[in-house]
Amino acid sequence: MGKTAIRTVCKVDLEKPCSEQPNLHNRWHPDIPFAATIKDGETVKIECADWTGGQILNNDSADDVKNVDLTKIHYLSGPFEVEGATPGDLLLVEIMDVQPFEDQPWGFTGVFDRGNGGGFLDEIYPSAAKAIWDFEGIFCTSRHIPHVKFAGLIHPGILGCAPSAEVLETWNTREAELIAASKLADRDVALPPQPKNVHAGSADAELKEKVGKEGARTVPGRPEHGGNCDIKNLSRGSKVYLPVHVPGAKFSVGDLHFSQGDGEISFCGAIEMAGVITINFKVIKNGVANLGLKSPIYIPGPVEPQFGPGRHIFFEGFSVDEHGKQHYMDVTVAYRQTILRCIEYLRRFGYSDYQCYLLLSCAPVQGHVAGIVDIPNACTTLGLPMDIFDFDISPSSSVGKLDMGSCAFETGVTDGKVTSGGKNSEMSFGGGLTYKE
Amino acid sequence: MGKTAIRTVCKVDLEKPCSEQPNLHNRWHPDIPFAATIKDGETVKIECADWTGGQILNNDSADDVKNVDLTKIHYLSGPFEVEGATPGDLLLVEIMDVQPFEDQPWGFTGVFDRGNGGGFLDEIYPSAAKAIWDFEGIFCTSRHIPHVKFAGLIHPGILGCAPSAEVLETWNTREAELIAASKLADRDVALPPQPKNVHAGSADAELKEKVGKEGARTVPGRPEHGGNCDIKNLSRGSKVYLPVHVPGAKFSVGDLHFSQGDGEISFCGAIEMAGVITINFKVIKNGVANLGLKSPIYIPGPVEPQFGPGRHIFFEGFSVDEHGKQHYMDVTVAYRQTILRCIEYLRRFGYSDYQCYLLLSCAPVQGHVAGIVDIPNACTTLGLPMDIFDFDISPSSSVGKLDMGSCAFETGVTDGKVTSGGKNSEMSFGGGLTYKE
Amino acid sequence: MGKTAIRTVCKVDLEKPCSEQPNLHNRWHPDIPFAATIKDGETVKIECADWTGGQILNNDSADDVKNVDLTKIHYLSGPFEVEGATPGDLLLVEIMDVQPFEDQPWGFTGVFDRGNGGGFLDEIYPSAAKAIWDFEGIFCTSRHIPHVKFAGLIHPGILGCAPSAEVLETWNTREAELIAASKLADRDVALPPQPKNVHAGSADAELKEKVGKEGARTVPGRPEHGGNCDIKNLSRGSKVYLPVHVPGAKFSVGDLHFSQGDGEISFCGAIEMAGVITINFKVIKNGVANLGLKSPIYIPGPVEPQFGPGRHIFFEGFSVDEHGKQHYMDVTVAYRQTILRCIEYLRRFGYSDYQCYLLLSCAPVQGHVAGIVDIPNACTTLGLPMDIFDFDISPSSSVGKLDMGSCAFETGVTDGKVTSGGKNSEMSFGGGLTYKE
Amino acid sequence: MGKTAIRTVCKVDLEKPCSEQPNLHNRWHPDIPFAATIKDGETVKIECADWTGGQILNNDSADDVKNVDLTKIHYLSGPFEVEGATPGDLLLVEIMDVQPFEDQPWGFTGVFDRGNGGGFLDEIYPSAAKAIWDFEGIFCTSRHIPHVKFAGLIHPGILGCAPSAEVLETWNTREAELIAASKLADRDVALPPQPKNVHAGSADAELKEKVGKEGARTVPGRPEHGGNCDIKNLSRGSKVYLPVHVPGAKFSVGDLHFSQGDGEISFCGAIEMAGVITINFKVIKNGVANLGLKSPIYIPGPVEPQFGPGRHIFFEGFSVDEHGKQHYMDVTVAYRQTILRCIEYLRRFGYSDYQCYLLLSCAPVQGHVAGIVDIPNACTTLGLPMDIFDFDISPSSSVGKLDMGSCAFETGVTDGKVTSGGKNSEMSFGGGLTYKE
Repeated sequence: MGKTAIRTVCKVDLEKPCSEQPNLHNRWHPDIPFAATIKDGETVKIECADWTGGQILNNDSADDVKNVDLTKIHYLSGPFEVEGATPGDLLLVEIMDVQPFEDQPWGFTGVFDRGNGGGFLDEIYPSAAKAIWDFEGIFCTSRHIPHVKFAGLIHPGILGCAPSAEVLETWNTREAELIAASKLADRDVALPPQPKNVHAGSADAELKEKVGKEGARTVPGRPEHGGNCDIKNLSRGSKVYLPVHVPGAKFSVGDLHFSQGDGEISFCGAIEMAGVITINFKVIKNGVANLGLKSPIYIPGPVEPQFGPGRHIFFEGFSVDEHGKQHYMDVTVAYRQTILRCIEYLRRFGYSDYQCYLLLSCAPVQGHVAGIVDIPNACTTLGLPMDIFDFDISPSSSVGKLDMGSCAFETGVTDGKVTSGGKNSEMSFGGGLTYKE
Repeated sequence: MGKTAIRTVCKVDLEKPCSEQPNLHNRWHPDIPFAATIKDGETVKIECADWTGGQILNNDSADDVKNVDLTKIHYLSGPFEVEGATPGDLLLVEIMDVQPFEDQPWGFTGVFDRGNGGGFLDEIYPSAAKAIWDFEGIFCTSRHIPHVKFAGLIHPGILGCAPSAEVLETWNTREAELIAASKLADRDVALPPQPKNVHAGSADAELKEKVGKEGARTVPGRPEHGGNCDIKNLSRGSKVYLPVHVPGAKFSVGDLHFSQGDGEISFCGAIEMAGVITINFKVIKNGVANLGLKSPIYIPGPVEPQFGPGRHIFFEGFSVDEHGKQHYMDVTVAYRQTILRCIEYLRRFGYSDYQCYLLLSCAPVQGHVAGIVDIPNACTTLGLPMDIFDFDISPSSSVGKLDMGSCAFETGVTDGKVTSGGKNSEMSFGGGLTYKE
Repeated sequence: MGKTAIRTVCKVDLEKPCSEQPNLHNRWHPDIPFAATIKDGETVKIECADWTGGQILNNDSADDVKNVDLTKIHYLSGPFEVEGATPGDLLLVEIMDVQPFEDQPWGFTGVFDRGNGGGFLDEIYPSAAKAIWDFEGIFCTSRHIPHVKFAGLIHPGILGCAPSAEVLETWNTREAELIAASKLADRDVALPPQPKNVHAGSADAELKEKVGKEGARTVPGRPEHGGNCDIKNLSRGSKVYLPVHVPGAKFSVGDLHFSQGDGEISFCGAIEMAGVITINFKVIKNGVANLGLKSPIYIPGPVEPQFGPGRHIFFEGFSVDEHGKQHYMDVTVAYRQTILRCIEYLRRFGYSDYQCYLLLSCAPVQGHVAGIVDIPNACTTLGLPMDIFDFDISPSSSVGKLDMGSCAFETGVTDGKVTSGGKNSEMSFGGGLTYKE
Repeated sequence: MGKTAIRTVCKVDLEKPCSEQPNLHNRWHPDIPFAATIKDGETVKIECADWTGGQILNNDSADDVKNVDLTKIHYLSGPFEVEGATPGDLLLVEIMDVQPFEDQPWGFTGVFDRGNGGGFLDEIYPSAAKAIWDFEGIFCTSRHIPHVKFAGLIHPGILGCAPSAEVLETWNTREAELIAASKLADRDVALPPQPKNVHAGSADAELKEKVGKEGARTVPGRPEHGGNCDIKNLSRGSKVYLPVHVPGAKFSVGDLHFSQGDGEISFCGAIEMAGVITINFKVIKNGVANLGLKSPIYIPGPVEPQFGPGRHIFFEGFSVDEHGKQHYMDVTVAYRQTILRCIEYLRRFGYSDYQCYLLLSCAPVQGHVAGIVDIPNACTTLGLPMDIFDFDISPSSSVGKLDMGSCAFETGVTDGKVTSGGKNSEMSFGGGLTYKE
């Protein structure tokens, strides 16, 4: 009598390429075969690879980050059939727990090279950089960013149900229009379907080819299903209400994060990890119409780390960019400025800009929209919890500069400065976007 | 022996036009004369008019909102001399308390007419609307938005030190450039200096004329000094660190809010009120350089209303607009969508869209930047505290529609629909911005 | 149109003896005449004297505390008739706000002389002592306990409805039995009715005499109605459900506290003040039976100061007293030990024991019952918020001793040591209780 | 390069009697041999048996609780040598995580029979009862107490360093004095050393006999080292400062709890479980003197479940017992009354008293000392979080009685009523304590 251990519906083998594992996939498409079946009401465990499928190593060089193959990412676990789910239902996903693998107690945060992935501040910080984080229970620390320790607000970066054919068509059309209309000279504005390195789970060759041609890329979250929403508070105990678009729901999950700051600013900004997520599934019949939902909603769990409001320093930023140019009500510009204000503040304790950039990507910083109606300046704020540092970072601190070592860099770069080779000689501290003529 | 009552350094007379009161002013300019002097270390009380200077009445028509004179707003209290403050210092402003006047226990939230002020959703909700809020101690309720009661996160919308001549010149130049470059057909992108209805405190006629020609408008917050930052958490107990640009600091404050949501989306979106703010002032010598600050920072107080993370519903929005158009990493678009998702959700309980728009402007909703790096979709979230409602708004609620009455509208409009006259016949439910040819 | 200021149903005159004010009283008795009438559903303001009726002055001597007349205390405001309330109902009392008088921004905490009132640690700290607190908005500070500032968790120490004749009879009987059975040689175990200095509001002489003979003293809280429960979290926004025993409820309130720690250990341990409480009243018909209540319950408001769990130091205490004697599961002994552990801890920063005793009485310390079943030791904990100090009190602090000045003492005592006269020569540092032979 | 999995210094075999495992022990004694050695600064995992050593089964009968052998409990893991620790030091124990075994996702809460263990309310609830809890990630539910789910505030009930010979002598002396002086007719007031079923780890026969004769029982916490303090908030992320009494510290830990309420009132009141605790150890030289500690202190971690103050119902209790007898300032009596008030309140939803008793023992209820100086009534409060129930338990709830099934009982008892046999015919609903003639 009594309960036995919770069923694991998806195992991953970290020693084997993700592309060879039939219960993983890296596109959103309605036809990818089910990886397993879950009962309505059941709680199961699902193992997940890290979002790069093991490309990033636990070492002190960011060359792996610089050279990461971005066509081989986001191997998601699933898709799972949830019994009884049909289009128009909501899938209520309750995250009972998320844990790293016991024998893999580490993760990484990366700053991507501006030419290979980039990030929110890549015009200012174009080099690849990396921090490795060690996990001890609920806490993490990094040899690359000393004097910091915090409890993980652990969560999946990606979760959602497969699109229907119609939803998929909508995605591909509207993103193609954006790409066609783009006047940006030097950066992708969206990623169209890409047959290269497609992984469609247990699909046969024909289906795989179809998925490669049509399947939506996993990088953006999308309003119809959530997907890669990267919401830091979608952690243990959260209930997420996901629209169902295909019979059986075809739920997928992956991209586990030990922690993340609001914005996940360095792109590979969370503390990325492989691990196990425990989920309870419930089907809410006709939930989409009954609740009037066009996008997922969620209710956080009760165990978020709590610091008290008075233990945060809040930085303010406005939509005037780093060149002094006034932008009209641009929250994106304002948020970038807010982060820069925080980086500048932390310098006086000895942290390098790249260390700060990494830290603000993955620590539980609060990014708020403050004022969005006072033309021409949007105002955003960034709340930095003081208690993740083991020294006093308050404005009245007299600590001064500490020995902060260094984060990991790509070969030839030290502390954000090129020490050999050439790229940084042309490093643009410009920011803003360069438009096509 | 012992402490006597705290000194009031600024009285306002609500029966008299703000423009006739010499300790008020409505421009940022270094030459506006001091209204009073405060010692370094002193705590004082400062009375403030509401941001419209009394134009909005406690009644059930939004005609006053529709016809508000926007050249007669933001009469700030001050500027105050803080002894010992010189450029390069920080002024540490600790907000000891904010209270409405005891005999004026009410405030208002307005949706501005699209043609006179507008707001974050004015393309969708173009009519003027209003909610009056009654205060009873820490709580507010509105006859225009029933079944809601919450504790105020009371704060000043505007506070800052006067710009130096150089800083002022910077502001005027960069905003003029934005205006010159604007391609928007039907809306102001910024407000240049405006001599009409300028109020320069106790300035003589000549100085007043100068302030009218040069003085920066008070609508936008600005990175160099804060100003109209509209940060909802800058409430009781907060410490704000403000850069000083002129001798004596010339600190001003006003635009008191009983409560506000992140974004203050309807422009007149807070619960606007007249009242009294109690502030302690301290000068931190050379603070700007020592702390490396380019913009104000603040540390919140300990008494924010707390609901628990699990007592919020979070809505997700992405940078795909209401016409299905994909935008590139546009947080502004994403935040607008997030709010629309919440409005749609609340409809099922009987609230009108305008009631929701008003409520989400002023209730303590949490607007977060979630993911800002997953091209092309920025993701934002909006956290709605369930406990401000006196019925169950959770996804599992079976409450159904309640009798929600109506908010106040401009004459000829009922529940957002034109019942007479013509404007709404051309009402654009378009959203997005119309560009000049 | 619109709301006017909230009605004040009880004014107190701080210049006049409380005993001469007909809307005050200092006994619990069903026959004390109504002071005013309040409608079911109404919100009103009620002014209150401080609990000593003005006996304690804002100065630097504790002689007033030493010589306080304890027959002239607890002048409560009321009793108020709430329309429609009848025995068996619940009175729902929602505390909308509590404020000190604007022109009396101060309060006091006292250690009572062991021979005149005493307190939880009077065997160890027998002298009278005092700290005066100055209020600035939500915060208080004391010249007698430097380096401390905190936001008030402001609340009424006493609130309740009048007992019926039957309930009053129960009280008098059971407390008389305790007094009769007491074997304590040197301390009162309860206070019987006392005609001296009785104040029965607007009662005539005959009724006053009756109230003096029968009326229950106000010192203890009692299960049937609450009364002097001294619950620190019963602050702004709290809803209290009070059993009604007589027609019209006869609600009384008083003994306002700017702040208090769990236990209010020094007896006059809160920050005592005069002020104004704003209350909304609602009658819940038959609530006592419907909810199965024998004692009041309450739901706290949302604005308690929040420090975060990790910003508290918790001290542990067990039921082994300061002489090393083992007591059987005695939570009272354990809590006394817990407080002593905290006093000992704070000594290393330079605070005197009396300063600590005063501080732990009035600061928002958390006193928890931890383990109550592990014979023979009850275990209690005391959580001290670190952020009420302006220096680092954590175990890793290197601050050392600061200049902490002194609290106020009775004449002839300095820092808890007798410098003249005789009492302290016989000062028992014994603790525990001395029993009659 | 990089971190490998955390070292496990103590494995337990749940299939084997605890008494045969050399890294467990069930007495406090300075001579029990080290079970393993841990470096100063190291983080390790320690497996622990449940506190009954496996006597309680996952079934629907409480006969195992009724007949539990209380001489075979508290098999602690250890004692561990921490390198460098010497008497006078503090051992800083940081609890990085606590987890149940993955293949044992369940625990139990028991009401002990009055004649075999008893509990805080055993005079009223004398029968044995039990609830089995199933764990799914951070949450637990019970088939024996429906409509309840909550996140565990997971913690060790027992942790501490071994006493020195002197400290042990102190314990044995003072507890023997209590036993000798006791006038209680029918209950043990303390447990003297007991050779029966002593387990002294890897001690040889001679040493084992010595430990049996002298070793302190593990039931009570004790001020000198903590021990079985049963503090519910000593959870993940907590830092505990433990006095060191012997070279190498001889740290032991056990009695893991998935959750517990303040007081752990039913004695076996937590959700008892076997599992793994991850701890970081640091030695603070001379910490006892430097910090002035006589008992352990701790600082909680940041991840406690948070419900918001306004999501608790607080019950009030006073030192008047259930027979109407007035006690003098007795917090123990007051706390018992507070719990009874809560049980009475929950009845109206259909829960039996035994279900409530079990629930209030293990759910994260807040037990506070409120007022401890208002003679003769001590006042305590109990905060019950509303959000652990899946229905509305607020005072305004209209839910009525639900089908609540039953907890497990000993044979012959149903819902607290004897249905066969004899014990309950003499069941004393008296409460209070029976004294020897």
